[in-house]
Amino acid sequence: MTAAPPLVLTQGDPSGIGPEIALAAWRALRADGPAFAVVGDPGFLSRLAARLGLDIPVRATTPEHVATLFGHALPVIDIARPVAGAPGRPANADAAETIAAIETAVGLVVSGAARAIVTNPIAKHVLYAAGFAHPGHTEFLAELALRHTGVAAPPVMLLWSECLAVVPITVHVALARAPALLTRAAIVETGRIVAADLRVRFGLARPRLAFAGLNPHAGENGAMGREEIEVMAPAIAALRAEGVDAIGPLPADTMFHAAARAGYDVALAPTHDQALIPIKTLAFDSAVNVTLGLPFVRTSPDHGTAFDIAGTGKANPASLIAALLLAARLAASSEPITLARRA
Amino acid sequence: MTAAPPLVLTQGDPSGIGPEIALAAWRALRADGPAFAVVGDPGFLSRLAARLGLDIPVRATTPEHVATLFGHALPVIDIARPVAGAPGRPANADAAETIAAIETAVGLVVSGAARAIVTNPIAKHVLYAAGFAHPGHTEFLAELALRHTGVAAPPVMLLWSECLAVVPITVHVALARAPALLTRAAIVETGRIVAADLRVRFGLARPRLAFAGLNPHAGENGAMGREEIEVMAPAIAALRAEGVDAIGPLPADTMFHAAARAGYDVALAPTHDQALIPIKTLAFDSAVNVTLGLPFVRTSPDHGTAFDIAGTGKANPASLIAALLLAARLAASSEPITLARRA
Repeated sequence: MTAAPPLVLTQGDPSGIGPEIALAAWRALRADGPAFAVVGDPGFLSRLAARLGLDIPVRATTPEHVATLFGHALPVIDIARPVAGAPGRPANADAAETIAAIETAVGLVVSGAARAIVTNPIAKHVLYAAGFAHPGHTEFLAELALRHTGVAAPPVMLLWSECLAVVPITVHVALARAPALLTRAAIVETGRIVAADLRVRFGLARPRLAFAGLNPHAGENGAMGREEIEVMAPAIAALRAEGVDAIGPLPADTMFHAAARAGYDVALAPTHDQALIPIKTLAFDSAVNVTLGLPFVRTSPDHGTAFDIAGTGKANPASLIAALLLAARLAASSEPITLARRA
Repeated sequence: MTAAPPLVLTQGDPSGIGPEIALAAWRALRADGPAFAVVGDPGFLSRLAARLGLDIPVRATTPEHVATLFGHALPVIDIARPVAGAPGRPANADAAETIAAIETAVGLVVSGAARAIVTNPIAKHVLYAAGFAHPGHTEFLAELALRHTGVAAPPVMLLWSECLAVVPITVHVALARAPALLTRAAIVETGRIVAADLRVRFGLARPRLAFAGLNPHAGENGAMGREEIEVMAPAIAALRAEGVDAIGPLPADTMFHAAARAGYDVALAPTHDQALIPIKTLAFDSAVNVTLGLPFVRTSPDHGTAFDIAGTGKANPASLIAALLLAARLAASSEPITLARRA
């Protein structure tokens, strides 16, 4: 066996669209790769393929055989927990399986048997009902990383597309809480992780970070809010003092058109919507979620379980395919990846 | 004289890019119109044309002669206040002139001598230094409308482009204040004005309004903020009870890609950046600012005075040209205008 270790793709909530977009991604990538294995229930995937009228051989296997199998069958790392639910009908009984798939995938990547993790969407309310105690998917991965490595890994969410990459500094919090959470420490720590991972994973020698202001027009010299003056400018100055190429705070509304995007590799914005609106406007179907700050490469498609269309074959696999391709590029970590290709 | 009354274009801050983009707009529109007159200082415009090497005859005139003049000269309604400043060097002495041009333009449109107003950018700090007591350009126009008509006109800012139209419900306020300003009354009043003006001015029989939520994922059923449940949903229900076609609150990040835009005519968002980021990402050079709720049509280019490039001829007149064209269409108010042309 001389092939590179494979990517591992978690099954995600088996009643969501994850399993069927995994089947579609295999069809799209079987000829040219990258090779991946689903971590989940091979019997369920085989039945789902039949239900969708797809002639896809599904083969339970181990990581070292994925590369040779991949051209003619979908390799699956069997976690020996049969799926109880059905497409569109999530079952709380499957929560343990969904969690086990994530744990297995992390174990494989930490051991070197896999080279990166791609995660399919999960439904937090299903996991919560089964006693899952983490705020979300990403926080759970950080906890698993800590368990394996002993090093706390503060995860940072990057949304990546061919034309724009963004990082929200505050993420899944009520907007009213965002100003208080936008501390100097949060900005500096996020900027450090982004700069470091863009060097190491994305191969950018000197990544250019551009920060958006919190307030309209970045506060207009304090006329509409003072966070830019009192919090953001000092934090950005501190990053620059550490050698990070950082500019801002810039007015958020004028920094995402094509000409402005040429001025940076990644935009960091104080709120979820400031960061996610422009990338989902420009690259709705192909944006990829990348978790920075972890001791391994993790990407995921930029959408949820979509229970409402699961099992119908309507789900668009574009974001998952983009996530698999990007994971392979990041894990190779040789070829420099231009984050903001000039449109 | 049977020609329709002309558009009037205020000079704006004479030291900004307004005068030179007015010259450029005349060159672009002289053949096919719509005919417009600048309200300002004809001598200054003539000298500016010479400085820029442009062979543009400038002719002081009155509104009724604009239509016949427009094909061979730039018509100017002379406010008899010579400009003191120079391109890139704003003079506080010009503040009274800038204000007088706006007042003259409003007088012309209220009297019926002009059919719509297009305003060039002003610099608030220059006007403040001269004692200007209004929060901004739009509020000043609303005050002038009240003075002329006796009816209070709460102005609403719409940003319009061929592919997307947006309205920020809160505008130029610190982000930390936005949640408290997002009241049911503010949402209902804004929605009413938008629906009414889209019917009357834009000729849409049943305009479709889509509201963005304040919080990430529109709060995710209260998990990240309760404004959607407690404030926005009841306000939207109240609008629907009045017969307004309104949906939401929707997650802001997933409502601006092309397929989502097909579902509404205008998006209304709680904060400045939620509304302005998507339109400036998609249509940076061609977005037009339209003030709804006034007793006359007012549009303006979607940029500022740009003192740093004034007088160099580098300024892009695209947004002003789009503002003139849209003002003419709105003033005609016969042809239905598709706000969100399907991309």
